[in-house]
Amino acid sequence: MTKNMQTINIETHSGVMTITLNRPDRLNAFTRIMMEEMVAALDEADADDDVRAIIVTGNGRAFCAGADLDDPDAFATAKPDPASKDPTVWADPAIRDSGGILALRLFNCLKPVIAAVNGASVGIGTTMQLPMDIRIASTDARFGFVFARRGIIPEAASTWFLPRLVGMSKALEWCCSGRVFGAEEALEGGLVRSVHAPEDLLPEAHRIAREIADNTAPVSVALTRQMLWRMAGADHPMRAHRVDSRAIAARNASGDSAEGVSSFFEKRKAEFPNRVSTDMPGFYPWQDEPPWA
Amino acid sequence: MTKNMQTINIETHSGVMTITLNRPDRLNAFTRIMMEEMVAALDEADADDDVRAIIVTGNGRAFCAGADLDDPDAFATAKPDPASKDPTVWADPAIRDSGGILALRLFNCLKPVIAAVNGASVGIGTTMQLPMDIRIASTDARFGFVFARRGIIPEAASTWFLPRLVGMSKALEWCCSGRVFGAEEALEGGLVRSVHAPEDLLPEAHRIAREIADNTAPVSVALTRQMLWRMAGADHPMRAHRVDSRAIAARNASGDSAEGVSSFFEKRKAEFPNRVSTDMPGFYPWQDEPPWA
Amino acid sequence: MTKNMQTINIETHSGVMTITLNRPDRLNAFTRIMMEEMVAALDEADADDDVRAIIVTGNGRAFCAGADLDDPDAFATAKPDPASKDPTVWADPAIRDSGGILALRLFNCLKPVIAAVNGASVGIGTTMQLPMDIRIASTDARFGFVFARRGIIPEAASTWFLPRLVGMSKALEWCCSGRVFGAEEALEGGLVRSVHAPEDLLPEAHRIAREIADNTAPVSVALTRQMLWRMAGADHPMRAHRVDSRAIAARNASGDSAEGVSSFFEKRKAEFPNRVSTDMPGFYPWQDEPPWA
Repeated sequence: MTKNMQTINIETHSGVMTITLNRPDRLNAFTRIMMEEMVAALDEADADDDVRAIIVTGNGRAFCAGADLDDPDAFATAKPDPASKDPTVWADPAIRDSGGILALRLFNCLKPVIAAVNGASVGIGTTMQLPMDIRIASTDARFGFVFARRGIIPEAASTWFLPRLVGMSKALEWCCSGRVFGAEEALEGGLVRSVHAPEDLLPEAHRIAREIADNTAPVSVALTRQMLWRMAGADHPMRAHRVDSRAIAARNASGDSAEGVSSFFEKRKAEFPNRVSTDMPGFYPWQDEPPWA
Repeated sequence: MTKNMQTINIETHSGVMTITLNRPDRLNAFTRIMMEEMVAALDEADADDDVRAIIVTGNGRAFCAGADLDDPDAFATAKPDPASKDPTVWADPAIRDSGGILALRLFNCLKPVIAAVNGASVGIGTTMQLPMDIRIASTDARFGFVFARRGIIPEAASTWFLPRLVGMSKALEWCCSGRVFGAEEALEGGLVRSVHAPEDLLPEAHRIAREIADNTAPVSVALTRQMLWRMAGADHPMRAHRVDSRAIAARNASGDSAEGVSSFFEKRKAEFPNRVSTDMPGFYPWQDEPPWA
Repeated sequence: MTKNMQTINIETHSGVMTITLNRPDRLNAFTRIMMEEMVAALDEADADDDVRAIIVTGNGRAFCAGADLDDPDAFATAKPDPASKDPTVWADPAIRDSGGILALRLFNCLKPVIAAVNGASVGIGTTMQLPMDIRIASTDARFGFVFARRGIIPEAASTWFLPRLVGMSKALEWCCSGRVFGAEEALEGGLVRSVHAPEDLLPEAHRIAREIADNTAPVSVALTRQMLWRMAGADHPMRAHRVDSRAIAARNASGDSAEGVSSFFEKRKAEFPNRVSTDMPGFYPWQDEPPWA
């Protein structure tokens, strides 16, 4: 299945949805419409039981060159006076950062997401990768938390995600200097999992997607991803114990668990019966989302 | 002192308690009784001022091959309908994950715990290591957050502990793929501190235990361990400032501190007078535990 | 500008303030007055728009040999009975750890801080470095979370900072053993960013300071630093989304952003017009500080 939208392409086959940022003449610069189309693609992936993993990559020589400076709504639709002391100005929902809306949608995704960074990424091009689960890079990839060099600040909730991926020292250094850096520094600093020749990048992304799709139970992966991202911010292991006690009891009594055990003893590939659309445990969703305002 | 329980052995000498998982014919598979015996051993260690450090290892070729599939209560004693929407079903205390009960007991331990991973560990065999303070591995060790491959989910509060040990990227990759991996990958990913020849594993665990036992004040180590694990989840450094202000004032006025200073100036081994059983500061425990339900 | 205070020297030129711990005959041991003078220097740096970055180093062969044992108020001015069960004893504000007061002041700093660790540092000498943004070490540097070997505990809110810098495994190992270690182990464990020959240490600190001062917008760096340190402890990415939505909207409409864009297209050095003293966004400060008591 292939679908060409205005700013992205979506292709789904053999259980893997590939989202390709597709404004190559603009180095795939980010617009409000791109955000909306990516959110729609993730909604589709979550609703489609045939999608087991998602790959995000860019068409052409860049991954994403940051917010499109020609789109006045790339960050937000409201344009407040920076000096305003009026709290209603700052509580306007139209002020919500569109990179952050995408980041929170990725955070809540039910399928694992793999970033295949094929070329330059800066600004939102880099920060949109952080809520994805696995990042791999081509030797051509570049990264930059360039915000301080442009007079702005790290958005897309990146100040929450980045320290949990690379630790506070790297996060502070990269964001305070605004420096652009290559794939090797990204690998050394823990921002990407591995670096590949350009022609090997998508095959490796597919290999990782296949490893998940061919071996794991979809409902288990959906719950695991939700639990890890949420517990990364939780104050006490009791928060995890509350959720995973319920989840292990529910899953242990599931058809998936029975199949997991028999396939293991029979040394064969498991065929898990449960589907994300219908078989999430009865207590799901357990989460209280903090409100925007 | 040696004590053989049903599923574990406990041996204490020269200040070090060694807990050996002891169901070698079952690859030390985890049962509800093993959980209860480990909790009892930790209670004993905490109450015994002669125990300065704890080593956990496995008898035979495995460390722990996960939950024993022949024990229907290995995870929990309640067996809820996974699809239930009835909140009382999910609030039943009998649903509490036994791996999580062990993990929270380790989290609250007053003595440092060293995992000496002698062989294969998967599932709860791996997740039980996370709330321990130091993990070392034999070259024979293997690790696996295999839950998604068995149709279940990471338990034992591991979704809270793992990101704080190895960062979110490794945590997501290991848990979403469910892949089993060896000691070298565990070392590279930061899951274990060091890898040793099989015959060097327990000697190294004892060397680490001795370094702590021979040089440090027991009350200081008990407080330090509590503070680090709790502040790893705290929202603001003020939470640490509240506790450590009280703790440094209390300890600075203690006999241990006087001995710490004089032994330092006299260049001799300190003989700390304070005991965990009687000399924890008056404000201890300061913690509010979140409730289970 | 050079200013000699009782325990530190302050020198500011070309946008960089250097704070030199200056009790070389006492290996720069920490006193209550040193804490007060460092806080005053940071207040000055924050109020002075000409200061773009701060370097902290030590005079002589040590960086800072820990709390001065001859200063009875080095930790706190209150001296409680350690065994007291009276809550008013523990709620006395005079009990507040002076290392923690310094750490919280660094946490709230509006300018990036670089630790240039020239020699031995132990106790508060090491923990005061943690809320700084970048740590570099001379080959002569040494580090030690020695508290448990002196009968005390890690202070200066270090149990909050350390796990976020080096992960829980290293934090537990270093703090439970109390071992002193060299620059190489600090580098390997992620405590410092890089190690340099003694004569290259300050030049490298200045190079890092210059990279920030010459390329970035001061208001952007002040906000970025605040956001990263605060979100490192936040429970959910929505906390970041709330702040960065407001901050990106405010900054995007600022003169700095206009200059950031034009200088980028004109391939010239940006001359950012906004000042920290007058141009922080109208919603700043957004933070609720947890109270001390």
